[in-house]
Order: sequence, then structure tokens, then C-alpha cells
Amino acid sequence: MNPTIDLLNNHRSIRAFKEQPISQEVINTLVSFGQAAATSSFIQACTVIQVEDSSKREKLAEYAGNQKYVQTAPTFLVFCADMKRHEMACNLHNEQMQSGFTEQFITATVDCALFAQNVAIAAESLDLGVVYIGGIRNKVNDVSDLLDLPELVYPVFGMCIGYPDQSPEVKPRLPLPIVLKKDSYSNVQDSELLADYDKVIRDYYLSRTGGNKDMSWSEQIAGMLVKEARPHMLDFLKARGYLLK
Amino acid sequence: MNPTIDLLNNHRSIRAFKEQPISQEVINTLVSFGQAAATSSFIQACTVIQVEDSSKREKLAEYAGNQKYVQTAPTFLVFCADMKRHEMACNLHNEQMQSGFTEQFITATVDCALFAQNVAIAAESLDLGVVYIGGIRNKVNDVSDLLDLPELVYPVFGMCIGYPDQSPEVKPRLPLPIVLKKDSYSNVQDSELLADYDKVIRDYYLSRTGGNKDMSWSEQIAGMLVKEARPHMLDFLKARGYLLK
Repeated sequence: MNPTIDLLNNHRSIRAFKEQPISQEVINTLVSFGQAAATSSFIQACTVIQVEDSSKREKLAEYAGNQKYVQTAPTFLVFCADMKRHEMACNLHNEQMQSGFTEQFITATVDCALFAQNVAIAAESLDLGVVYIGGIRNKVNDVSDLLDLPELVYPVFGMCIGYPDQSPEVKPRLPLPIVLKKDSYSNVQDSELLADYDKVIRDYYLSRTGGNKDMSWSEQIAGMLVKEARPHMLDFLKARGYLLK
Repeated sequence: MNPTIDLLNNHRSIRAFKEQPISQEVINTLVSFGQAAATSSFIQACTVIQVEDSSKREKLAEYAGNQKYVQTAPTFLVFCADMKRHEMACNLHNEQMQSGFTEQFITATVDCALFAQNVAIAAESLDLGVVYIGGIRNKVNDVSDLLDLPELVYPVFGMCIGYPDQSPEVKPRLPLPIVLKKDSYSNVQDSELLADYDKVIRDYYLSRTGGNKDMSWSEQIAGMLVKEARPHMLDFLKARGYLLK
């Protein structure tokens, strides 16, 4: 339909990068395009930490569950939900910020995600590849200490960026009728659609792994969701001044 | 630099639309591009409700704080964080989903935001305009009832889409050095940068309103953050099965 849409449709996570570095000018540009995204009530609650220090990168790779590419990618960005500067704005006008509301957690987190997705798309439009790194939340306290994050700032996810040295296939998504519903939520058709999709994903994994990975989507999801999901997050966020009420 | 980047850089919220409708084919395409966004551990936790029913649209406009364009925009989508189908996947394999973790709330909410930002960008690439509607969280219980959302599904935000009937200026964003930091978080420069930016925003509002709105960014933020922020959200989300631990 148009080059932008082709780009969106062709997204795959890239985890192998050429050594070719990305200039600071390009990184600045990518981040400024991130800023251009919509922001809830103009709060602009996203701060990006660009991690260049190699010992910090090594630690981040370990914290993220030994994801080597966090260390080796030409560029690694940490997207932080940040209401520290809003506190500064309140102080400037001798006002006491009412913080800790769950609503603020949502707006700051969503702000980061919209921002980051713009960075991802801008990067891909420049023939770069990206992968989001939610794994930094494995050790979210250590990551915060490493980057000197103050209260009211929390690292939502990281992102590796670089010139791709691999070309993985696009992963098939859920059938449209499961994710797009009209006027009200109904899932009466979903189990049938899910069964079809399970076959698609099983075939995708089988063909991609030469028969080694034999798994449907629902199997993968069930395997993941019977386990605890980073149970430290709530206490961590409360200690940072989020989700208190 | 390229058409995609020009598009990102030119984003403004559009709140006045031509009557020209958007075909269902285009809406389906936009949503499928939303699906193409990255998704945490392949969870695909976003469901979109396309609201066509005019009485529901009228109510949603009211719930969102009397935002008339929610009613009149050619298309209105509600982006929901949805782990209902993951429960279905677990049941299919006789597994008990471990739900309620804050981490799952983050991944599902971020999934929705990445998805929606792709929809927004795809729409803008087709000369459509969009505005995110966080206001549906004003009456998040009523919105959920209206759309028959089950447990484990929560409406993150809405989005109006249509052909623009206005051409607002792009709103200047925070200075890059405030939002992009290197290797660690430091805000020693921020108050000075903020003072400069406050002037930029004051000038922007003054010129856009013919002198009527005389307000800096920090003033706007302070005015907003001395008030409670949708204090019902935490109880609502707990009742939906989120943020329980």
C-alpha cells in the first residue's frame, strides 16, 4: 500500500547485528522521533538511557537472562517511565505532586511504549533492526541501581538496535476475528479460531527448526502462564512511588 | 530523511474529522498492522473493539468527559488488554493460569500500546488522522459494562480515526537532553532546560490562542498533578483480575 505500511508489516525482532556502529546523530534523531508520539495530557513521561559503558552493558545482558545481544548490539536503550521531572515541575510552582496513583502508572508506561514504538519504526525505516528487551525486568532493582534511577523512574524495557545480521521470518499473528470485535466483546468463535491458529504456529515452528520445535501457540502460552511472572514487580514499583493507590 | 520518518515527525492529534467513512477493509488492514507490532513473549494480549453502534458511541463520548468527537469520528476503536484468551489456552491444556501478577499487567498494557501505535502510524500513512482517548478510563467500569468486557480484559484507551478536517500545529516536545541520558540518570541540567522549554510552550500557547492561553509546560503539569488521578483505577483493575500481586 505504501512504504510505511510495508515496513510495519515486515517487523521481526532482530537479535544478531553487524558490528557497524550507529552514529550519535542517528540515535538522537531516533529518540526525537520517539518524542513525536502521542503523549497522555502532554505529560511526556518517557526518559531514555543510552547505555554505552561496556561493563554496564555486560551486566544488563546478564540481568536480562544472559541475552548476549544486549551486550553486543551497537546501541542499547533503556526506556524509563519517568515522573521525576513532573515532581520538579510541581516544586517549581510550590505545589505538592499527588503521586502513586495507578492511573499515573498507566499513562507513564503507555507513554514509554508509544515513544519506543516510534523509535522502533524510525529505526526500521533506516534499515536498522530492533528487539525489545522485557528481560531487564528480571532484575529490575539491579538495573535501576546500575543506571542510578531515582524514585518515580522505572525501567519499562530495553531495546537493542543495529544493522541486522540475520533475516528471520515474520511470525504469524492471531486470526483477525479474535483480536477485532464489533460493538461488544464476544469470544464464542475464539476456541475454534484458536485451534486453527495453533496449527499455523505448530507448522511455523516445525519448518523454522527443521522439526525440532513442535509446539502450538496455546501450548506455548499455557507453559508460560503456569509459572509466576516476575513476582517482585509490585513491591519494586511501590518502592519507586508507583501503584500505591 | 524518508516518508516514514516525515510521518512520525508530523504527528498531531486530530479531533475534527470529515464525514467520509472508512471502509471495513481499511479498518481490518489497520488492525492487522497493529498485530504486526512486537509482542512480549508472543502473548498478543491486545483486543480491539470497533464501536459502530451509535447509542454506544454516544455513551462513550459522555463517559470520556463529553468528547464529542468520540461520537462523531468515522471510526472509534477501544484497545483492551486481554488475557482472557490466555486463560482459554491454559484450560485447553488442563493448566491453571497464574494470573494477577503486576508483570502481566505491564506486558498486556505495553502490548496494547505498541499495537495501537502501529495502527496510528498506519492510519496516518493513509492520510487519516487519529487521537488517543485516555478519557474512557474516567468511567472505566461503565465502559467495560457497555462493551461486555469479561474479567481479565480492561480498556486501556480508545482511538478516534478519520479524515482530518483540521490541521493543528505540531506541539514542541521537551528538549532532547532531558529525555535522552547516557549511561546513568542525571538530572542536574534539567531545571535549566525546563526553564527554556517553559518559554517555548508559553509562546506556543500564546500564538495558537491569540494570547488567550498563557501557560508554561511546568505550570500545566503542576496544575494537573495536584489533583487526584482517576483514583478508582486500582480497585477496578483488581476486580478485573489485574494487579493482585
